Amino acid sequence: MTVKIAVAGASGYAGGELLRLLLTHPEVEIGALTAASSAGTKLAAHQPHLVPLAGRVLQETTKDTLAGHDVVFLALPHGHSAEIAAQLGPETLVVDLGADHRLADAGDWARWYGGDHAGQWPYGLPELPGAREKLKNTKRIAVPGCFPTGGSLALAPAFAEKIIEPDVTVVSVTGTSGAGKALKPNLLGSEVMGSASAYGVGGAHRHTPELMQNLGAIAGEAVTVSFTPVLAPMSRGILTTASAPLRRAADVYELYQKFYDGEPFVQVLPEGMWPTTAATLGSNNVQLQVAVDALANRLVVVAAIDNLTKGTAGGAIQSMNIALGFEETIGLSTVGVAP
Amino acid sequence: MTVKIAVAGASGYAGGELLRLLLTHPEVEIGALTAASSAGTKLAAHQPHLVPLAGRVLQETTKDTLAGHDVVFLALPHGHSAEIAAQLGPETLVVDLGADHRLADAGDWARWYGGDHAGQWPYGLPELPGAREKLKNTKRIAVPGCFPTGGSLALAPAFAEKIIEPDVTVVSVTGTSGAGKALKPNLLGSEVMGSASAYGVGGAHRHTPELMQNLGAIAGEAVTVSFTPVLAPMSRGILTTASAPLRRAADVYELYQKFYDGEPFVQVLPEGMWPTTAATLGSNNVQLQVAVDALANRLVVVAAIDNLTKGTAGGAIQSMNIALGFEETIGLSTVGVAP
Amino acid sequence: MTVKIAVAGASGYAGGELLRLLLTHPEVEIGALTAASSAGTKLAAHQPHLVPLAGRVLQETTKDTLAGHDVVFLALPHGHSAEIAAQLGPETLVVDLGADHRLADAGDWARWYGGDHAGQWPYGLPELPGAREKLKNTKRIAVPGCFPTGGSLALAPAFAEKIIEPDVTVVSVTGTSGAGKALKPNLLGSEVMGSASAYGVGGAHRHTPELMQNLGAIAGEAVTVSFTPVLAPMSRGILTTASAPLRRAADVYELYQKFYDGEPFVQVLPEGMWPTTAATLGSNNVQLQVAVDALANRLVVVAAIDNLTKGTAGGAIQSMNIALGFEETIGLSTVGVAP
Amino acid sequence: MTVKIAVAGASGYAGGELLRLLLTHPEVEIGALTAASSAGTKLAAHQPHLVPLAGRVLQETTKDTLAGHDVVFLALPHGHSAEIAAQLGPETLVVDLGADHRLADAGDWARWYGGDHAGQWPYGLPELPGAREKLKNTKRIAVPGCFPTGGSLALAPAFAEKIIEPDVTVVSVTGTSGAGKALKPNLLGSEVMGSASAYGVGGAHRHTPELMQNLGAIAGEAVTVSFTPVLAPMSRGILTTASAPLRRAADVYELYQKFYDGEPFVQVLPEGMWPTTAATLGSNNVQLQVAVDALANRLVVVAAIDNLTKGTAGGAIQSMNIALGFEETIGLSTVGVAP
Repeated sequence: MTVKIAVAGASGYAGGELLRLLLTHPEVEIGALTAASSAGTKLAAHQPHLVPLAGRVLQETTKDTLAGHDVVFLALPHGHSAEIAAQLGPETLVVDLGADHRLADAGDWARWYGGDHAGQWPYGLPELPGAREKLKNTKRIAVPGCFPTGGSLALAPAFAEKIIEPDVTVVSVTGTSGAGKALKPNLLGSEVMGSASAYGVGGAHRHTPELMQNLGAIAGEAVTVSFTPVLAPMSRGILTTASAPLRRAADVYELYQKFYDGEPFVQVLPEGMWPTTAATLGSNNVQLQVAVDALANRLVVVAAIDNLTKGTAGGAIQSMNIALGFEETIGLSTVGVAP
Repeated sequence: MTVKIAVAGASGYAGGELLRLLLTHPEVEIGALTAASSAGTKLAAHQPHLVPLAGRVLQETTKDTLAGHDVVFLALPHGHSAEIAAQLGPETLVVDLGADHRLADAGDWARWYGGDHAGQWPYGLPELPGAREKLKNTKRIAVPGCFPTGGSLALAPAFAEKIIEPDVTVVSVTGTSGAGKALKPNLLGSEVMGSASAYGVGGAHRHTPELMQNLGAIAGEAVTVSFTPVLAPMSRGILTTASAPLRRAADVYELYQKFYDGEPFVQVLPEGMWPTTAATLGSNNVQLQVAVDALANRLVVVAAIDNLTKGTAGGAIQSMNIALGFEETIGLSTVGVAP
Repeated sequence: MTVKIAVAGASGYAGGELLRLLLTHPEVEIGALTAASSAGTKLAAHQPHLVPLAGRVLQETTKDTLAGHDVVFLALPHGHSAEIAAQLGPETLVVDLGADHRLADAGDWARWYGGDHAGQWPYGLPELPGAREKLKNTKRIAVPGCFPTGGSLALAPAFAEKIIEPDVTVVSVTGTSGAGKALKPNLLGSEVMGSASAYGVGGAHRHTPELMQNLGAIAGEAVTVSFTPVLAPMSRGILTTASAPLRRAADVYELYQKFYDGEPFVQVLPEGMWPTTAATLGSNNVQLQVAVDALANRLVVVAAIDNLTKGTAGGAIQSMNIALGFEETIGLSTVGVAP
Repeated sequence: MTVKIAVAGASGYAGGELLRLLLTHPEVEIGALTAASSAGTKLAAHQPHLVPLAGRVLQETTKDTLAGHDVVFLALPHGHSAEIAAQLGPETLVVDLGADHRLADAGDWARWYGGDHAGQWPYGLPELPGAREKLKNTKRIAVPGCFPTGGSLALAPAFAEKIIEPDVTVVSVTGTSGAGKALKPNLLGSEVMGSASAYGVGGAHRHTPELMQNLGAIAGEAVTVSFTPVLAPMSRGILTTASAPLRRAADVYELYQKFYDGEPFVQVLPEGMWPTTAATLGSNNVQLQVAVDALANRLVVVAAIDNLTKGTAGGAIQSMNIALGFEETIGLSTVGVAP
């Protein structure tokens, strides 16, 4: 079975990564590619690495250009996907890479993003408890944010087994591609190279409520998250360091191994090895390692992902595969491009 | 008054940074430069950026080559400075950039470094309460580790005013020069570029007891520190994110401003600005910003330093200036090299 | 038909890239992985990105461990492959990624590498005139050097059509992975990041005679090459700028398009677009663009490749595919990983 | 004697570097700082590394705000300085960091930049034959472009001694800060990191006529230059590789040493050492090395500079020092910030 897919937002980084992966997917045919201000130009001007699609012309993002596809990926700025999604028929699988359909609570949406809440869709992080079941046969998928992907997978086993207090700190070091192609001075190469900087400090980043929602659901109680993103001089990758006070002693390494046993895209590293984002570059893999800090009586977990792959486009395709009944891993790889 | 200085370990990164700064210091004459395996070679082979000293020949690090200097800087691997320091006369100002004389507790030394404890020297972080006084007229200075410099200054005001619980998490993103010129595979450019990775996770890094010692002394009670260093693709810079539960409400911005009022090398940024390591490159400056995370009821502090300057060689010279009765700021700058 | 392959030198960068690509190749079974000093350790310790092979134990590189494979890749230091290759039977396809079998002239070998000449094998750059034919059914392949790959393809059309003088200058900006995992001070991340430097200047680089050999064969006359490699702060990628005096006027863009028409891995970019190494990262693609410098009456060609893929391991697999009668492109991609 | 200076374009990279250096200059007082769209904002928002000037408010760039200063630096986009310069009195030393007053030939100006030619001013590259004399007591200085600085100094000795043919190729690998703070997609960190790319290929870069003008004046005959700039993933630095056919045999190393003997900011490296841009970071130094390529019968010269320092702001201050009768080296350093 071949499905026909459209990508809205094909000129951006998320859209480009979707297409890179879909080009290797055996069950898809790449249909309409759409954009906003870049409509009418060729894809090569925006994605010179996508050689087989170089001559494709970007169309406008409208109901009509997206019609007639089995799957529509929406890689649009936050707040733009709800409107276009509402115009797509219920038989179309709509995969939203934006934030519009992630949060359950309308008050949270209003507080963190503003405007009307578009409602919550099945959440595209299959490794979370219960998530995979909800993705089967769904026609609507909310792809997680890149930081919640790493942070949730880093702490899910510990909350599922109730070994930590619901009071966590998460510091995530990220490459610049997570910020997209927005032309902001602080994203210029001259500013980024040779520099590390924090932003959204003090609970100001919009991925915070999503992390709290995910972890709270697993813990069965409210979880507070002190989240700080740090921008580092690299294009891709997120390295998340998450920690929380231990509630009780546990063989945390074994606990993590068991929790993720059989998961194709989560790898608890051999003891003594620690994750590097380089090892996950371009792959859909999550690399994890855990430690108990006996001095501070805390669990510390480090997780590496590629923000554009597992953190965005790869996670989206993994969830699409589940929704359509495909083998979950097709079109995706555990193998990174290193060094 | 001109003092004659010697630098032991002149071929390494800390030694190079000392010399870079001392070349601009109006009150010093640069005497012997010594090294271990590089003795007999010219400095240009190791420090091509130190043009005025290019022709200097490195000598062996011995009591004799270091004799006859007013100040001796020891930029040696941990465990090597105590022995050579013991051979230098009490009239010589010995500034140890290694760890040998930082810890007060012999048990801590044995546990974290191994071997005999060489005793504690006045601690070269003048901004800490009481530290500046102890440095005046001293003939022995223990220069802080690079991570404890940033972490201690990030949290000192909060502990001094007792607004946080003694249970902190610190994640420090560091450039590679902190690891020195050791030829290790994980420090190769091919491995480092495009990658972030954590190490010494779970309380395993040797700077942890130093941080706990500093913060405990300010707090007047034991402080636990969950410390994680993260290696990022840049040569210089440490960006520290430190947080702790708030004990009581406070105007943290004003509190930090007051605490560091008059400090020449600590800059609490204007509200809304966050530190970048680039802005401190090559300078002796610390850039700080604070936030209260109301969701998590935590104080979050971000501090940027240049690990080789304020974090090592600049801090050493600042302390030397105090010990010798010089103006504290000579030979040092608050101005970074950016972009 | 599935062939069983062995990789000698599996712990290095070239070996790792071979395995990354072979994991996607539908017609191979990965057999013995061998190494020198790393024999006995697991692959995960050296190639953490190759998740499906993480538990594989490296064997010693001997005739016995390499026996019983249809294809043996030798990713060994220069001068090591000839000896081991001589011990492999004539029925085994031996693909040498080192320099041992590239040069035709024994005097050239002695001058540039020293020691006995092992003889020349069919050259694994199928896009050169006549090369593809010689690779069919061969049992011995000499994979080109990374710089000669870019430089030869940049100038082949111009020499084939005799539009330039046989006197060229080539400056190739390269990432650090081309230097392998050798633990040299100048390859440390701290030294490489933020810095550009030339090496092997003045005709001292060993890839010079290989470039001259390739271009001379196409030109039908001796070609002198002034070649300068420049190390830049990136892990992968070579950007080659090649130029030569024009012998006669020509529509160079059309000429290049025609020459490479139908080549699956050479892409003459649309007019106005210039190559970036990022667009080729992890792909087997060569991106080319040409210009006539009317002021200087020179042809200028810019070519981008991934040094580890098209420049080493990808080129090796492409040539293996030809030798074994497979579709030339299987296991390889034109799609880069960007940004 | 203290002079009062103004900087027009203080929010940009060239303006920031001027101020960084002027803060260490013992004979200047920093007066008005002006900008275009950033007028009215504080300098800290644009130059967070210039701590002592953090609170300064940017004024508009007008005749009035620049009046009353002894020296006015114009760090403005090309084509903007001529107009404002014409409004500044003849007693004011005007130092133009833009291109407006570099070219002698009105036809060249029209062809490469367009519009009316503003005339040529004394050229701020004191190391060129005769240039230093023309700078003494001048009230108008045209600061060289960053590429012509490296390229001219790389080849000046060879042309002065007539040992090369007037037909040179120059490839300059540059950091991104040379492109300024312009918000262009190809200058985003995500695009730049991990990538090398050429631009202005085929004689299209505006620094080409300036290089030809400089080299032709030294050679006493027309010199053609095939110039290609390559963008590399670093903020600062230009590494220039220049080569030309040898006209006659010569001891090129000795020739270069003699030519630059006594020059404070040009360093012919010890034989066997090659320049790195890192060694010049933040310094006003030029590092040079030469080789004869016997195979190609060419001279090859490699030169490293910091594009913002010697290539722009440092060169401007060096020339100002000469014009005002100061010691040429004050406010400038030969010492780079490395690693």
